[in-house]
Amino acid sequence: MAAPAFAFVENGSITTPAGFLAAGVTAGFKKSGAPDFAMIRSAVPAACAGAFTTCTFAAAPVQLSRRKLAAPGCRISAVIVNSGNANACTGEAGLRAAEASCVCAAEALGVQPESVLCASTGRIGVQLDVSMIERGVKLAAAALSPAGGPEAAKAIMTTDTVPKSVAVRFEVGGKSVSIGAMTKGAGMIDPHLKTLHATMLCFVTTDAAAENDFLADCLEPCTEDSFNRITVDGDMSTNDTVLLLANGASGVAIRRGTPEAATFRAALEAALRELARQMVMDGEGATKFVDIQVKHAPTRDDARKCAEAVANSLLCKTAWFGNDPNWGRVIAALGYSGASFDPDRTDVFFGGIPVVRQGGDAGTPESALAEAVGGRTIEILIDLNSGEADYWVWTSDVSYEYVKINADYHT
Amino acid sequence: MAAPAFAFVENGSITTPAGFLAAGVTAGFKKSGAPDFAMIRSAVPAACAGAFTTCTFAAAPVQLSRRKLAAPGCRISAVIVNSGNANACTGEAGLRAAEASCVCAAEALGVQPESVLCASTGRIGVQLDVSMIERGVKLAAAALSPAGGPEAAKAIMTTDTVPKSVAVRFEVGGKSVSIGAMTKGAGMIDPHLKTLHATMLCFVTTDAAAENDFLADCLEPCTEDSFNRITVDGDMSTNDTVLLLANGASGVAIRRGTPEAATFRAALEAALRELARQMVMDGEGATKFVDIQVKHAPTRDDARKCAEAVANSLLCKTAWFGNDPNWGRVIAALGYSGASFDPDRTDVFFGGIPVVRQGGDAGTPESALAEAVGGRTIEILIDLNSGEADYWVWTSDVSYEYVKINADYHT
Repeated sequence: MAAPAFAFVENGSITTPAGFLAAGVTAGFKKSGAPDFAMIRSAVPAACAGAFTTCTFAAAPVQLSRRKLAAPGCRISAVIVNSGNANACTGEAGLRAAEASCVCAAEALGVQPESVLCASTGRIGVQLDVSMIERGVKLAAAALSPAGGPEAAKAIMTTDTVPKSVAVRFEVGGKSVSIGAMTKGAGMIDPHLKTLHATMLCFVTTDAAAENDFLADCLEPCTEDSFNRITVDGDMSTNDTVLLLANGASGVAIRRGTPEAATFRAALEAALRELARQMVMDGEGATKFVDIQVKHAPTRDDARKCAEAVANSLLCKTAWFGNDPNWGRVIAALGYSGASFDPDRTDVFFGGIPVVRQGGDAGTPESALAEAVGGRTIEILIDLNSGEADYWVWTSDVSYEYVKINADYHT
Repeated sequence: MAAPAFAFVENGSITTPAGFLAAGVTAGFKKSGAPDFAMIRSAVPAACAGAFTTCTFAAAPVQLSRRKLAAPGCRISAVIVNSGNANACTGEAGLRAAEASCVCAAEALGVQPESVLCASTGRIGVQLDVSMIERGVKLAAAALSPAGGPEAAKAIMTTDTVPKSVAVRFEVGGKSVSIGAMTKGAGMIDPHLKTLHATMLCFVTTDAAAENDFLADCLEPCTEDSFNRITVDGDMSTNDTVLLLANGASGVAIRRGTPEAATFRAALEAALRELARQMVMDGEGATKFVDIQVKHAPTRDDARKCAEAVANSLLCKTAWFGNDPNWGRVIAALGYSGASFDPDRTDVFFGGIPVVRQGGDAGTPESALAEAVGGRTIEILIDLNSGEADYWVWTSDVSYEYVKINADYHT
């Protein structure tokens, strides 16, 4: 039996799946008075999996969520998220504040504290004001709504310019299964969740029924092929968190090895990849979306080193901002990437147009090259002709606005 | 016997040591008509050592110089340098152009082609116009002068705003020995010569007499503790080159294991370190000189990873530009550096003022911190309290001007 097909849901969000309520309110963390506190509530305790930053200085909410998710068979009833304070580098007091936040939400919702997870994003090193969390919990609990997904997506934004939500849907035996997701993050974005090194937060809901282990086994490769493929500034955060909640409200159980399990995973990957694309499009100060494909490397690791070196090169990023088809900077980045390949067999294409052939100038006229890098999206294909392994990365450029955002953020 | 002391020479340059002539002229590589061709001439064939980029795409002059220096007992009579064209990614034709350049200079000077080295910096991927080299050689050969060091230093500049020269001097048995050096490089600076991954060029002259092997043994650690400690943009170049020429015109032979050998090495290191400092001060768009010291790491490699992660963090670099004492970004960079250390023992100081104590906010008032990061120089001390190993790195900030320089370079 073929795996069922899935489709994106127009204006979908974390409340598209059945049995999820959400809210976004103003708790007071942001001086602007913009929404800064989100709550996700599952009508029934949900199975759950998570992926977190690998930063040595993991924020208090990351430490706490990791611990709760480690409990065998754990079930999650709610997630609370504040923006404006990362609760990172806040020591024991920060951990107690995170715990108190969960207790506060648990009491308001009438659930167990162990079934509440929390996440934070914002300034590092400032103690979390739990009275603000209390205000947020009170307002959010009252505002919870099956149409609350879009409001929640607004409340988790920091330097994001647009909220980012998505949902996908597929049918199993005449029943509809949905996956909804929201994310935030425009800077400190170089997620290498779990395996390597961003502040990005992502919350995924589904009304499928599934076991924690199955969810974790799906989440890892899907994160690897979405968020772990993007970089805005090469900086990883103390707070990166991806949570996946499955409450079973669709009445469809997804079991390992079935056609619908394959669809579930493909749909999850598509949802996360769409959010990853939105994050790069909304990267701090970004004027370009740059798709970097490396083909025919000796190993996947060589391909990855090449793609990441180009994506994180400050000289490449500023050249893209300047609509400059400067392939010499791409070549330089490949050369210092540490990857193994034959430089004399390296071809590079911008928007399908050859710029480098066998390690040298392909002779394409400047005017054609300028057109290839002049649009909102730049496609770079690096063909190493040295093997069979591929890798891809999405990134953005570095603009005046990027510098402005990050030089002025503190004040 | 104590090693003799050395001293910096006011307005010193590569022609401070006896027996060296130099010139800087306009050959036509730069559209601006600024000087773009330098020649260094040793009155007698000089012993020589070199250090080069480790970029996979090493430029033609790098390949050629490496090959000439590999010849046992090789002696060098002249070095020619052009700015405005890197002769990188130019294939066989580029290599032939580099060879023809050396032949041209050899004929003009009446020396063997094997005793002439060449170096290039500028645009990657453009074939070198040898007729311009011929013009440069003709003009430079006629202009060679024992006072030509400063002119040569101007002719090798690209985005540098000031020429960079230095000389040091010490006495051995009543005779004066000098070391002179010049460098260029303001962007694509993250030199990891030989061992890792910049365009920087550095030419060192000395009137000491020494063997090639001794020179190589001195150059490697001195480069490691100077140019390899600096980063402007984290990008390494295809053309990085450091050459050291020793012509013996002082009449002083420096032999391994002697007190004067120790002085020679210390003087060389001091000269290269001063040039490294000047390069960071003149980093593209730089408004800050940032000294990053990491202390008490478990291993030197851990200390190095910490220092380099902070130095290359785009978020830290933009915060410095903004006079922002944002220690959270320093902590985040340490956290993703891959170094081993105990986060809860980590202390951080800005200008000697504690900002992080045991992994958390040290409680220093914002006003004091703002002062610590408000000047031209920012001193960051990271004490991991996790071992005995140290490392230091010098870097600059990322400003609007940095973006402007690199977005507009091509056009």
